[in-house]
Amino acid sequence: MLRLSPPGFYRLGQTGQLDATYGGSEANVAVSLANFGIESSFVTRLPRHAVGHAAVQNLQRYAVCTRHCVTGEGRMGIYFLEKGIGERSSVCIYDRNDTAIQQAARDDFDWDAIFQDATWFHFSGITPALGKNLQQICQDACAAAKKAGLLISCDLNYRAKLWSRQEACEALTQLCQYVDICICNEEDAKNVFGIAASGTSVEDAQINKAAYVEVAQELVRRFNFQKVAFSLRTSHSASDNDWAGLLYSKGHCCISKTHHVRIADRVGAGDSFAAGLIYSIIAGKNQQETIDFATAASALKHTIEGDFNLVSVNEVERIAAGSSSGRIQR
Amino acid sequence: MLRLSPPGFYRLGQTGQLDATYGGSEANVAVSLANFGIESSFVTRLPRHAVGHAAVQNLQRYAVCTRHCVTGEGRMGIYFLEKGIGERSSVCIYDRNDTAIQQAARDDFDWDAIFQDATWFHFSGITPALGKNLQQICQDACAAAKKAGLLISCDLNYRAKLWSRQEACEALTQLCQYVDICICNEEDAKNVFGIAASGTSVEDAQINKAAYVEVAQELVRRFNFQKVAFSLRTSHSASDNDWAGLLYSKGHCCISKTHHVRIADRVGAGDSFAAGLIYSIIAGKNQQETIDFATAASALKHTIEGDFNLVSVNEVERIAAGSSSGRIQR
Amino acid sequence: MLRLSPPGFYRLGQTGQLDATYGGSEANVAVSLANFGIESSFVTRLPRHAVGHAAVQNLQRYAVCTRHCVTGEGRMGIYFLEKGIGERSSVCIYDRNDTAIQQAARDDFDWDAIFQDATWFHFSGITPALGKNLQQICQDACAAAKKAGLLISCDLNYRAKLWSRQEACEALTQLCQYVDICICNEEDAKNVFGIAASGTSVEDAQINKAAYVEVAQELVRRFNFQKVAFSLRTSHSASDNDWAGLLYSKGHCCISKTHHVRIADRVGAGDSFAAGLIYSIIAGKNQQETIDFATAASALKHTIEGDFNLVSVNEVERIAAGSSSGRIQR
Amino acid sequence: MLRLSPPGFYRLGQTGQLDATYGGSEANVAVSLANFGIESSFVTRLPRHAVGHAAVQNLQRYAVCTRHCVTGEGRMGIYFLEKGIGERSSVCIYDRNDTAIQQAARDDFDWDAIFQDATWFHFSGITPALGKNLQQICQDACAAAKKAGLLISCDLNYRAKLWSRQEACEALTQLCQYVDICICNEEDAKNVFGIAASGTSVEDAQINKAAYVEVAQELVRRFNFQKVAFSLRTSHSASDNDWAGLLYSKGHCCISKTHHVRIADRVGAGDSFAAGLIYSIIAGKNQQETIDFATAASALKHTIEGDFNLVSVNEVERIAAGSSSGRIQR
Amino acid sequence: MLRLSPPGFYRLGQTGQLDATYGGSEANVAVSLANFGIESSFVTRLPRHAVGHAAVQNLQRYAVCTRHCVTGEGRMGIYFLEKGIGERSSVCIYDRNDTAIQQAARDDFDWDAIFQDATWFHFSGITPALGKNLQQICQDACAAAKKAGLLISCDLNYRAKLWSRQEACEALTQLCQYVDICICNEEDAKNVFGIAASGTSVEDAQINKAAYVEVAQELVRRFNFQKVAFSLRTSHSASDNDWAGLLYSKGHCCISKTHHVRIADRVGAGDSFAAGLIYSIIAGKNQQETIDFATAASALKHTIEGDFNLVSVNEVERIAAGSSSGRIQR
Amino acid sequence: MLRLSPPGFYRLGQTGQLDATYGGSEANVAVSLANFGIESSFVTRLPRHAVGHAAVQNLQRYAVCTRHCVTGEGRMGIYFLEKGIGERSSVCIYDRNDTAIQQAARDDFDWDAIFQDATWFHFSGITPALGKNLQQICQDACAAAKKAGLLISCDLNYRAKLWSRQEACEALTQLCQYVDICICNEEDAKNVFGIAASGTSVEDAQINKAAYVEVAQELVRRFNFQKVAFSLRTSHSASDNDWAGLLYSKGHCCISKTHHVRIADRVGAGDSFAAGLIYSIIAGKNQQETIDFATAASALKHTIEGDFNLVSVNEVERIAAGSSSGRIQR
Repeated sequence: MLRLSPPGFYRLGQTGQLDATYGGSEANVAVSLANFGIESSFVTRLPRHAVGHAAVQNLQRYAVCTRHCVTGEGRMGIYFLEKGIGERSSVCIYDRNDTAIQQAARDDFDWDAIFQDATWFHFSGITPALGKNLQQICQDACAAAKKAGLLISCDLNYRAKLWSRQEACEALTQLCQYVDICICNEEDAKNVFGIAASGTSVEDAQINKAAYVEVAQELVRRFNFQKVAFSLRTSHSASDNDWAGLLYSKGHCCISKTHHVRIADRVGAGDSFAAGLIYSIIAGKNQQETIDFATAASALKHTIEGDFNLVSVNEVERIAAGSSSGRIQR
Repeated sequence: MLRLSPPGFYRLGQTGQLDATYGGSEANVAVSLANFGIESSFVTRLPRHAVGHAAVQNLQRYAVCTRHCVTGEGRMGIYFLEKGIGERSSVCIYDRNDTAIQQAARDDFDWDAIFQDATWFHFSGITPALGKNLQQICQDACAAAKKAGLLISCDLNYRAKLWSRQEACEALTQLCQYVDICICNEEDAKNVFGIAASGTSVEDAQINKAAYVEVAQELVRRFNFQKVAFSLRTSHSASDNDWAGLLYSKGHCCISKTHHVRIADRVGAGDSFAAGLIYSIIAGKNQQETIDFATAASALKHTIEGDFNLVSVNEVERIAAGSSSGRIQR
Repeated sequence: MLRLSPPGFYRLGQTGQLDATYGGSEANVAVSLANFGIESSFVTRLPRHAVGHAAVQNLQRYAVCTRHCVTGEGRMGIYFLEKGIGERSSVCIYDRNDTAIQQAARDDFDWDAIFQDATWFHFSGITPALGKNLQQICQDACAAAKKAGLLISCDLNYRAKLWSRQEACEALTQLCQYVDICICNEEDAKNVFGIAASGTSVEDAQINKAAYVEVAQELVRRFNFQKVAFSLRTSHSASDNDWAGLLYSKGHCCISKTHHVRIADRVGAGDSFAAGLIYSIIAGKNQQETIDFATAASALKHTIEGDFNLVSVNEVERIAAGSSSGRIQR
Repeated sequence: MLRLSPPGFYRLGQTGQLDATYGGSEANVAVSLANFGIESSFVTRLPRHAVGHAAVQNLQRYAVCTRHCVTGEGRMGIYFLEKGIGERSSVCIYDRNDTAIQQAARDDFDWDAIFQDATWFHFSGITPALGKNLQQICQDACAAAKKAGLLISCDLNYRAKLWSRQEACEALTQLCQYVDICICNEEDAKNVFGIAASGTSVEDAQINKAAYVEVAQELVRRFNFQKVAFSLRTSHSASDNDWAGLLYSKGHCCISKTHHVRIADRVGAGDSFAAGLIYSIIAGKNQQETIDFATAASALKHTIEGDFNLVSVNEVERIAAGSSSGRIQR
Repeated sequence: MLRLSPPGFYRLGQTGQLDATYGGSEANVAVSLANFGIESSFVTRLPRHAVGHAAVQNLQRYAVCTRHCVTGEGRMGIYFLEKGIGERSSVCIYDRNDTAIQQAARDDFDWDAIFQDATWFHFSGITPALGKNLQQICQDACAAAKKAGLLISCDLNYRAKLWSRQEACEALTQLCQYVDICICNEEDAKNVFGIAASGTSVEDAQINKAAYVEVAQELVRRFNFQKVAFSLRTSHSASDNDWAGLLYSKGHCCISKTHHVRIADRVGAGDSFAAGLIYSIIAGKNQQETIDFATAASALKHTIEGDFNLVSVNEVERIAAGSSSGRIQR
Repeated sequence: MLRLSPPGFYRLGQTGQLDATYGGSEANVAVSLANFGIESSFVTRLPRHAVGHAAVQNLQRYAVCTRHCVTGEGRMGIYFLEKGIGERSSVCIYDRNDTAIQQAARDDFDWDAIFQDATWFHFSGITPALGKNLQQICQDACAAAKKAGLLISCDLNYRAKLWSRQEACEALTQLCQYVDICICNEEDAKNVFGIAASGTSVEDAQINKAAYVEVAQELVRRFNFQKVAFSLRTSHSASDNDWAGLLYSKGHCCISKTHHVRIADRVGAGDSFAAGLIYSIIAGKNQQETIDFATAASALKHTIEGDFNLVSVNEVERIAAGSSSGRIQR
C-alpha cells in the first residue's frame, strides 16, 4: 500500500506535504526478513502504473524479490496516517476500495511455482479480510505450501473495519488448520476467536501476561499450532508504550523483558515481531532467544520511520542482549 | 480531487514526498471566480473523513461556498501528477474508481434549493463522464437551472480515459440543449462532436485560428449556443506554449493576442479560461474585452502552482492590457 | 498575526526556513469553536496586502466568518516563535508595532451590525493592551453586546510586554463590569488584579488547586461574574506539563482530572481552553462536563502544531471521557 | 532586512513555508565586495533580538565586518517577495514601518571612527528615503567621508513607495554634492532628477543605449561626478531579461556586451552591479574592463538565490571574458 | 558515488540541506538499461557501512543486480554538484580520494563468474583513470569478456582532473584493443587520442557534425571498432542545449535529429546515451533507429533529476518518433 | 568537519535529503565561546573548494575568527550522523581519511603569530589522534602557548576508532605535561590513562560521582593539573539522559546539580561543557559557579540542533540558577 502521512505531528487538513512510503502487513514482514539476510519474496497484485511500479521498487530496494508480483486492473491501496503524540492517538484512514489485490483471481498466482525452493509461507489475517476471492486464494496458498512442506505462519491481525468478528472467525478457523505458527497481538485472539485474557483491559493499559499462557493453550487446543506468539503492548500514550513478547511452544512459555519504547512510528510493529520470530526460528535460536529477538526487533521498529523495520540482526541482538542505554555509537 | 505531485520535476518513483493540493474542473472554476470577487458555490459529494474535509477546507479558504457539498460513502478522487519539462510531458494518473461523487444519487442534490439566488450554472464534460447517474444528475441540474432562469455554461473537457467519443457525444448532445455558453479547448469539438478545425494538427503544434470560427458556427447551428469560446494552445514543449482565445457570439468572432506562456503548472488552464469568461460576462465586458480577459487569466494560470488560478482581477487586467514585461512590482 | 517559526527545535539564527501560520488569541478561539460546529465570526482590522489576505484565508479555511474584518493602513502583526524542548523554554519575539489593528478607530466597527444574530461575545485582555483606542473599542463592543443580550466572556491573558499590571488592572476592571464569564490562567488573576493563590509557585511547578477557589470567590465578589474558570499549568519542562482546569460557578467548584501533556506546540492552549468552555456552555453541558471538556480540549491542543486547536468534538469527548492511552485508531 | 519568500513560484497565500534570507541594498553591496576579497564593513541599526542578531550573523558569514552595527529599539525591516515567472511579475511587499534604522539618531554613528582606515563609502538612495533623520545621517557620513579622503559612491535606487520624486530630488541633490561615482538603473535618473533617456520605454522593453550617454553628461554637468554608471535592463518577461551596463567617465563612454539572463532571482542585481563597479575601480581595471566586470557580475547575480551575489572574482571574470556557454565545470 | 547537491539553484555555501542521490558512469548505464527491461549487473567495490549499503539499495531499487558488488576498506566516493542556470555553469567537486574502489585488488573480482550468462560488458574511461590497479582490473575484465564472447563497449569519458591526456591515451589505447563499440562525447576523441573534429569549437557552441565522421573513421582505423557513436552537445547556456547523436558503423553514418533540451539535470546524459545505444543494439534496431533511440533517451535524461535516466522504452520511443510537443498525458 | 544527517529520526538508507552542518571538537568550543562573548579563533587546515569555504563561513557566522585557518590539498572531513531515539542509539560514520588536516605539516602554523594577544589555548585529544604529524603540531602549539603564558586546556576526548588506548596514553601523556586544565567525560580517564572510577558502569547507566574525585586526584598526581573537570552522563535512553559535572581544583571538589536532559541533539555536549568551563574561568566565577555554568551550558546543548551550542550567557545562567520549568518566554 501507498502510505501518505503528514510530516511530524501535523494533521491531514493542515499540510500541503505528504510523506509517501510503502507498506502493508506481509510486505513489512518480507522487508524485515530481507534485512535480516533471509531471502524473501513478496506476492501480491498491483496496478500497472507509476505508483504501482514505485511500490515494487521500494520492495526491491530492500532486497525483497518481487518476481511473483502480478499486475492488473484496479487501484493501488492507499492509507493516510496521522501520527499521534501524548494523549492524541495516531489515526489511519484506509482507502482500499477496488484495489488491484481485491480484484485478484485464483489463477493470478501459481503457488507451486511460487513455493519452489521456498521453506516458509507467511500471511496475515488482513488478506482474507479483503474478500471471498482472497480467502480462497489464501487457502490455495496454504494447501500448496503444506504440500510443498513449508512451515506456515499466520498473524491474525484483526481489522474491525474490514470484517466482522464472526466473518474473521469463520475464515481464519478454516485457514488456521494449515498454520504451524500463530502470531497475535494482545487483542487478536479475543477479537477473532473469542478467547480473552483474564485480568486484561487494553484500553486501561492493563496487561496480565500470565493469562496469555491460557490463551495460547486454548489456541493450541483448537488448532494444534506448534507455536503461539503474542506481542503485548501496554499503551501509556501515543508516545510511550511498554512492549513485551510471549512465546508458547510445546507446553512451555517464554516471556521477554519489557521494553519501554519511545515511539517514532508504531505502524508495522506487529509485522516486525512476526519477522523477528520467523528469523529466529530459521536461525535456530532457542525459545527464549527467539522471543527475546522478536520482541527486541519490534521494540526497535517503534523507533524507525515508515512501515518497514530497517534494522540489522546485529542491532537487534544488541538490544535483545539488554543494551538499552542508547549511548551513541561512534 | 486530491492531487498528489512530486516536488519540482521529480518522477513519482523517485521521491518520498508529495505535494498535496486539491482541484477538479468545476472546483477550479469556482475558486477562480471567488478570487475575482464573484460569490461562488461548489456542489459535489465527498467522503466523510479527514481528507474529504480537507478538500472542503481548501475551497473555503478561497471563499468558495461549500454549503451544498454533501458527504457519503465512497472514496476521495485522487490524481497523481508528474510535471514535465522540455520534451518530457506532464503525466496524470487518475485514481477515481469508486469515489463518493461516482456513487452520488439524484436525491443527494436539491437543485431548486441550490439555485435559489443563483444566476449562473457551470459544469464540465468530466462530470457526466463519471457515470449514467451523473449524466442524470447533470440533466436534473440543467433543467432546474433553466427553470430558475440561470445562464448555463459547459466546458466540454473531453477525457478519453473516462468515456468513448460516442458516449461523450450522446450525453453531451443531450445536455447541450440546455447550454447557453459552450467552452472548448482546441480538440474538444472534434473529440466530442466530430467537428474538426481544418489546417490544424495539435500534436504538430499547428493551430489554424480562422478554422475555429467555422467550428463555432457549426456548434451554434447544432445547439443554438449564445456564445462559443475556444482556448487555443500551441504546445512547443512542456515548458513553453503559445496560448490564445477565441470568442464567437452572434455571428461575430473576437480573437485575443497570443500569449507566450512559461509554464509553472499547466493543469487547470482551461478551467481558468472558463472562469475568466464567466467573470467577464457577469462584469459586463464587451466581446473583445471578454476574450482578452479570459485568455490573460488563463495565460497567468500557467504561472501558478496547483489547479487553482490564484490571481486577482487587477493582475489579469494588467496582463490583458498588454503588460507582459514581467518587471518587478515593488 | 503571522507566526513565523523555525522547523522542529531549530533556533531562529540557525535556519533559512520558517513555518508561516496564523493565530492570535481571539482568532484561535474562533477557529476552535468553528471546529466544534459553532458558527463563529472573527472581527479585526488587517492590512490590505497579500499577507493580510492570507490571514483572512486561513480563518475562512477553518470556517470562521471573516465578513466583519476590515482592512486599512498599518502592518500585519507578526510573532517569531522558537519552540523549546526539555529545559530550554520556547521563546516568542513579538513584532507588533504599528499594526493595522493598533491603528483601528472606533468607527471601523459597527457593533450593532456585527452582533446581529449573535449570542456570545468573547475577547481577550491582549486587545485592550494594544492601546487606548482599543480599550475604547472593547468598551463599545461590550456595551453593544450587553445591549443585544449576548453573553460576554473575557480571557484576562496578561502580557507583561504590552502593558504594566496597573494599566491592565485599570482597563480590565472597567471592561469586566460587562463580563459574564471570566477565564484566567494560573497567573492572570495575580498579575492583573493582584489576587494570588496561596501555596502556589508557578516557576517552581507548584500549583495549589484549592487556593484557586478563593481566587474565584474574590473575582466574583469584585465583578459579579457568573462563572470563573482557570486553566492550571504545572510546567515540568518545555516538553512535559501537567494541565488541569477549574470552573467556579454559583458557589460551586468543579475540577477536571489532571492531564499529563506531551507538548508538540503549546501556543494557544489558553485559547483552546476558552473555546472548550464556551462550546460546553452553549452545548448545555453541566458544570463538571464543562470543565472536563474545556480541559481535555486544551490538553489536546498541546499536541497540535500551530496556534489553532484543530480537533473535533468527538476527539475531545474521547479524551474527556478518560481515554488517554493514545492507541492507534484504524 | 529580513526577506521572506515562498519557495519556488508559490504565492504568499498558498504556502505555509517561507524562505528567510537577509538583504538590503548596502548590505548586498558589502557582501558582494567581501566575496571579491575587499574588506567591507556594513553600518546600520538593528533591533536587539534573535532576528536582528541573525541578520548580523548572515553578514559575518560572508566576511562582512559588523563592528559598526548598533542596536536599539525598533523593528527589523522585513520584505515579502513572491517570485514571478513568464508574464507574472515578482511582487515585493515592504514591511518597514517603525524599524530600528528608521529610529536612528545622528549620534548613533561616529563616522570619524567608522571611516578610520576606510577608503570608500557607498550608500544607496533608499537610506535617505527612510526619513529626515536618515537624510541628515547620510549627510554626516558624506561630510566625514569627504573629510577623510574617501571615494563616495551612490546608487540612486529610487523607490516610489518610500518617497515622491520631488522629495527624492531634493534630498539626493544635496547628497550628490559629495558623490564621486553615481550609479543608476535605466529609470533612476528620470525618476529622481527628471533626466529621461530619449527613445526608451522601459515598460515596452525598449532601451536606447545611446541616449544614456546624454543622461550621463547631464548628470555630470549638474553634479560633477567623476563617473556615472547605468545598468540597463530590458525585461522580456519575469524569466528572461537582457542586461547591459554603461560607464561614462571623463567624456568617454564604454558599453558592455548584452547578457541574456535566465532569472533565478533578480533582487539585488543593481547592488551587485554597484559592487562590481567598486571592485573594478579598486582593482585598477580600465574603463571597459570595469563596466564588463560590473555587468558580468550582476548578470550572474540573476542566477543566484537571495539578495546576495555569491560569486567569486574568477567566476565573474570568466563570464566577463565571454564564456557564456554554461558548460559544466568538473 | 554519493552525490550531494543543494536544492534548486542554491550554491553549496548557502544551504544547510543537500539532496543525496547515487550515481556514477557505469552505474548510470546499468540503471538505464534495467529501466529498459535489460537484465543488468553492476560490479564495483564499496565500503562496509550504511552509506555504502545505501548505494547498493539504490541500484537494487531500479532492478540492477548487485550480487557482484564487493565490500571492503576505503571510503565512499562522493561528489558535490551545484546546478547552474543560464550563464552560470554547473560545478562538480569530486571527493574521491582513498575510495573503496580505488583500493580494489585484482582478485576482488572473479570475472569468469561475473560474466557467466552475460552477453555484454560496458565500462567507462573513468574507471581506469582511478589508478594502475584499476587499469589492470579493466584489462582482466576485457580479456575475460572477450574470452566469454561478450560484446564490449567503452565510453571514453575523459576527466582531466583524474589523469593527463597522455596517461589516458596510453591506458585507453591498450583497453580499446578489446572494445567493439566506442562511445564518445564531442570532446573525448580529441582529449584522449588527439583526434579533433575540424570546424568545431565546443566552448563557442559550434559543432561541425560532418567532421565527426572523419573522427569516427580515424578511430576505426586505429582500433578496428565495430561501431563508433558520438553524443554532440551544443551548449547555449546551462539551461538550454542542443543535443544530437551520430553513429558510424561499417562505413555508414547516421545522424539523429537535433533535440533542443531544457535542462533539469544534465549529469549522466552521456551515460544515458550509452545505455540507449546498447539497448537498441540488443533490441535489434537498425542503425538510424539506434542513434535516434540513444539520442532521444539522452535528450530525455536532461529532464530527469539525478544521475539515473528514469524513463521507459515507450517514453523514449515517443520522443524518438518525433513527438516533442510536451503535451500533457492524461 | 561537514556533518551530514538525515532529517528527524530517519536512517541513512531511507532518505534522499541530508542536513548539512559543520562541527568538530575544537570548532564547537570556539563557537560556544564566541556566543558567550569571548573572542575566539579557530586554527585548522581545510581544502580549497566550496565545501571547505562553507566550513569557514559557518565559523565566521558565529563570530569565530578564521584568520589562522590555512588551506591546502586533502579532503574535507565528513561524518554521517543518524540520530537515535529511545533504545536506538545515534550512529556516527566517520569519513576522514586523507583530509586536509591530516596532511598538515608543522610549518603550516606559525604558533607565535597565532598566539599573539591570546590568553588561552584549547585542544582536544582527537587532534593528536589524527597522526604523528598532528601530535607534533599539538606539541609545537603547547610549547608556544606555554612560552607565551597562555592557559592550556585539553579535552581528552578518546575515540577508539582513531587510535588504541596505548597510543592515546603515550601521546596524551606527553601533551598533558603542558596542560593546566584537563577535561574528561565519564570514560576518558579510564580509556586513556587506565584510571577507572569505582562503582561505575557506564553501559548500565550507573555513575558513582564520589569515585571521580579519586580519578581527579590521580590525574593531578600524574600531571599536576590545576583543575580537572568531568562531565558525567547517565544514559537512560537515546532520548533521555542525566547530566552532571564535577570540578576538582586544589584539593576541593564541586559537583553540579543533575540535569535531566531531553535530547534534541547530543553531539558536541562535551565540547559545550569545555566551553562553559573556559568561559566561567575567564569570567572569574568561583568553583561552584564554574561547574554549574559549564554543566548548565552543556545540558542546554542537548536541546540545540547541530554540533554548535547556540545559547547565550543569559540563557545558561537562567538554567544554572535552577530554572528548569521550561515555561514559555514572551
